[in-house]
Amino acid sequence: MSVTSVKLNTPAPYFSLSKGCDLPQVVVVSTFPTSPQYSIEDDISILSTHKCIPKMCTTRIVTGDTSIPMPIESVKANLNDSVRFIKLGKVDVEDLRIMQQTFNGMQNACVVASGHDMSKDAIIGFSSGKVETGSSTMVITLDEALAYFPEYFESIKKGEDNLEVAKLVAESSAFQNILLLNTAPGGNSHIYYSKQTGEQLNIESKSPVSMISSTVATAAIANLSHGYTIKEAIYGALEFVQNAVILADSNKHPNYMYSVSLPLECMVNDECFEAHEIRSPKISPLPKPKFDSFYQYLIQHPLVKPSWEAYTNHDFVRQIADGILDINKFKFFIEQDYSYLVDYGRVHCIAGSKAPELENMEEELVIVGRIREEMGQHEQRLKEVFGVKDDSYFKTIERGTALNNYSRYFNDIARRGSWEELVAALTPCMMGYGAAAMKFKNNVKAEKGGMYDEWINIYSCENYEDGMRLGEKILNHIAERSSAEELERLAKIYGEVCALEAQFWDAALVF
Amino acid sequence: MSVTSVKLNTPAPYFSLSKGCDLPQVVVVSTFPTSPQYSIEDDISILSTHKCIPKMCTTRIVTGDTSIPMPIESVKANLNDSVRFIKLGKVDVEDLRIMQQTFNGMQNACVVASGHDMSKDAIIGFSSGKVETGSSTMVITLDEALAYFPEYFESIKKGEDNLEVAKLVAESSAFQNILLLNTAPGGNSHIYYSKQTGEQLNIESKSPVSMISSTVATAAIANLSHGYTIKEAIYGALEFVQNAVILADSNKHPNYMYSVSLPLECMVNDECFEAHEIRSPKISPLPKPKFDSFYQYLIQHPLVKPSWEAYTNHDFVRQIADGILDINKFKFFIEQDYSYLVDYGRVHCIAGSKAPELENMEEELVIVGRIREEMGQHEQRLKEVFGVKDDSYFKTIERGTALNNYSRYFNDIARRGSWEELVAALTPCMMGYGAAAMKFKNNVKAEKGGMYDEWINIYSCENYEDGMRLGEKILNHIAERSSAEELERLAKIYGEVCALEAQFWDAALVF
Repeated sequence: MSVTSVKLNTPAPYFSLSKGCDLPQVVVVSTFPTSPQYSIEDDISILSTHKCIPKMCTTRIVTGDTSIPMPIESVKANLNDSVRFIKLGKVDVEDLRIMQQTFNGMQNACVVASGHDMSKDAIIGFSSGKVETGSSTMVITLDEALAYFPEYFESIKKGEDNLEVAKLVAESSAFQNILLLNTAPGGNSHIYYSKQTGEQLNIESKSPVSMISSTVATAAIANLSHGYTIKEAIYGALEFVQNAVILADSNKHPNYMYSVSLPLECMVNDECFEAHEIRSPKISPLPKPKFDSFYQYLIQHPLVKPSWEAYTNHDFVRQIADGILDINKFKFFIEQDYSYLVDYGRVHCIAGSKAPELENMEEELVIVGRIREEMGQHEQRLKEVFGVKDDSYFKTIERGTALNNYSRYFNDIARRGSWEELVAALTPCMMGYGAAAMKFKNNVKAEKGGMYDEWINIYSCENYEDGMRLGEKILNHIAERSSAEELERLAKIYGEVCALEAQFWDAALVF
Repeated sequence: MSVTSVKLNTPAPYFSLSKGCDLPQVVVVSTFPTSPQYSIEDDISILSTHKCIPKMCTTRIVTGDTSIPMPIESVKANLNDSVRFIKLGKVDVEDLRIMQQTFNGMQNACVVASGHDMSKDAIIGFSSGKVETGSSTMVITLDEALAYFPEYFESIKKGEDNLEVAKLVAESSAFQNILLLNTAPGGNSHIYYSKQTGEQLNIESKSPVSMISSTVATAAIANLSHGYTIKEAIYGALEFVQNAVILADSNKHPNYMYSVSLPLECMVNDECFEAHEIRSPKISPLPKPKFDSFYQYLIQHPLVKPSWEAYTNHDFVRQIADGILDINKFKFFIEQDYSYLVDYGRVHCIAGSKAPELENMEEELVIVGRIREEMGQHEQRLKEVFGVKDDSYFKTIERGTALNNYSRYFNDIARRGSWEELVAALTPCMMGYGAAAMKFKNNVKAEKGGMYDEWINIYSCENYEDGMRLGEKILNHIAERSSAEELERLAKIYGEVCALEAQFWDAALVF
């Protein structure tokens, strides 16, 4: 018999909570089962993902035509007077009555309900003195609002003003705050309106997706339970649900767990943990491709080649070499690149912290030193050519979209990726600038010794080529230690970053 | 009326999932409500925290004395033949019959059940051909096993061999694998036994806590659904539940969400996100303490002083200065310190990546350079004095408990902490070695020029004092930008790290 022994460790290093930390409890009051379109599992998942202790409080059980009230003690056990945060799930007037019977703490509670789950009677019932809460918010879609209150339909159609709908729903119910979701196809602007304070928050979605009001309501009450303001809570809920839907892709269940790390994965990756004894090696079924230079292999790889070509043959560089680039576009580029280099340096530090060997850690630090030099050159240009006087200028550069997309990609890889993946993400910047500039090495038409000539020279000089050779060496080192699947993944990252580089120069040209 | 507008961003940089990623679905088959001691919310929370899509499949509704079977279509909707991973919750033989009626895919499914939820009839029913699965595991506590099968009680009492209990439970049921939990007070060793392969895994808990078999079963099926082996899944489940219980402290609900980050907190901290518009400033109610040197303030702070004194007056240093320290203890220390410095360098890199100003980033990198020098001194000592020949020796140093505790603390702060907190954690090492060594500066009794004399000299020379002055300057810089609450938190970290330093030298003395 094979016998293995391991020890359990504690405390774990990947806690995002401290000991004895009091998590807020959120109670979902609902009948059971809830509506088939959306289910109680989603509510509990969303609450867990938001670091809340989720509790179900079932008021009635509804199967087919039968409706059985839950024993009042069972309701009371979950809806006692210490409850502070309530999500109203699928409820009717009857359930509000049960709540009122069992729960005295309502005036201290914070309630978020959704139009998807409450019957019209319950929405109005909520207003008729059945339930009075400390703070109440209704999340409702435009469609739901118009279906429940068809009498508004006419007036709305005329004005097509969503703020009017939000105000009308607020007037028809006792809910103090209304979040009106515009989830119709192409609808991308949501409105939060507070009857109490008159505040209005417009939230525009860059990538509109279909959201269910119920899940937004659940994420909102979770944020409120952590002490965020109602506006913050609503913003966070919309952002969360939208991302959950986008990540799932069409036809899949929204990924409410997208910001959770798999606990066992954390343990296995932690050198202090002792799971190593029982770790099974991963066996790769794919043969490893053969090459002399991983860099050459990468730039010919089908996942890389198109974006590498677009990047290293970019017209931005040609216009510089020819000396015809609009100086304002160049200034915009230099400013964006300056901000980029700050992020680039940070991510190199993270790569250093993940490096497997000390010499790799040191290589990263040498690179950070070079990045500082490059930033110095940018500072000098902005001062000498563009008349920047104050050093504080560099901290106030406004970040463009291409820069944000690129930085966000870095942040993502820095958070999730291995050292190898980070290097794959960091290398295209260095290699591509060299590859692009060297094409014009002896062919610069821009004024000799001028800013554009100097720029081409920086990225095509001997010293820069030395750096590229070091980059190639590190890539080869990584290729040796990676499996066929890992090489594919590195190629994918390399290609994606080349596309971001090309977009970075695109942004300068269209400035 | 106050009107604010914000945009929703996508994609978010803090995803730990890629788009379209298929999360495994795990179905909890159970009656409703489940037992009061443990509830379905825990199951769903644990599954969410493990990145699974949780589904409830309710077989019967039980309120008071009434037992109503759920409509068979509703069971079928959740327990269709594509289901691969099942947690058996509170079920009886009747529920197994319902499963058998609706579910043909059982021979492909992987099932984990727990003794806490299944009736004895159901455990035996599982064995009598009612349910045949692809793979099945029973998680059961020693108490539950002896309560269900009292006929074993006598034989067990004699041998007190838990492996025998596991084998007996395996024989009495059709479960292929048994995880026997020893959750009695003081019980700290759990046994996994596979009837099929004869494998045995002993898992010893360093900090035994009371665990419910049901939650361990749920975490285990979650790990299995991600493709881990049964041994890995069980190790991960025990580690997860134990930590959840420990973190909650007594009388509190286990913190199954301990490795989740709050989504809105991630958004607010992300420079690319646009929540800044609606972010409310935190106002500190406490007055900020006044001081000239934050370092001097810290080492007098009640949260720091005791551990700072224990650390900087440690007998380990006195024994070195007096030249009487056992050379094997010194070798052990040098080796542990060498491994420590690798971690210390990594965490400085992370601090660099979080530094608010570029000059702070550079300071961190300068420090990493110095750490490499110190490692070089250690390498030299180990080679010259202790006859180490091969460089690979340094990679095989066995990590002691004090080192692991310290590194784990670093990892924790590196993951969660701000730059300020990281600096507070990294500084005691530098300041304390200097403070401890300088007390013996002109009072070294060890052989002049020898290894011990040289060691004291390194940490008390002018050059080292310069480094300490830089450290003090950085601490002052941090104190300026921190609120009263933040200063308290920094003091707490500083004190905790001083205690870890003292324990590090303790470990060398008791080696």
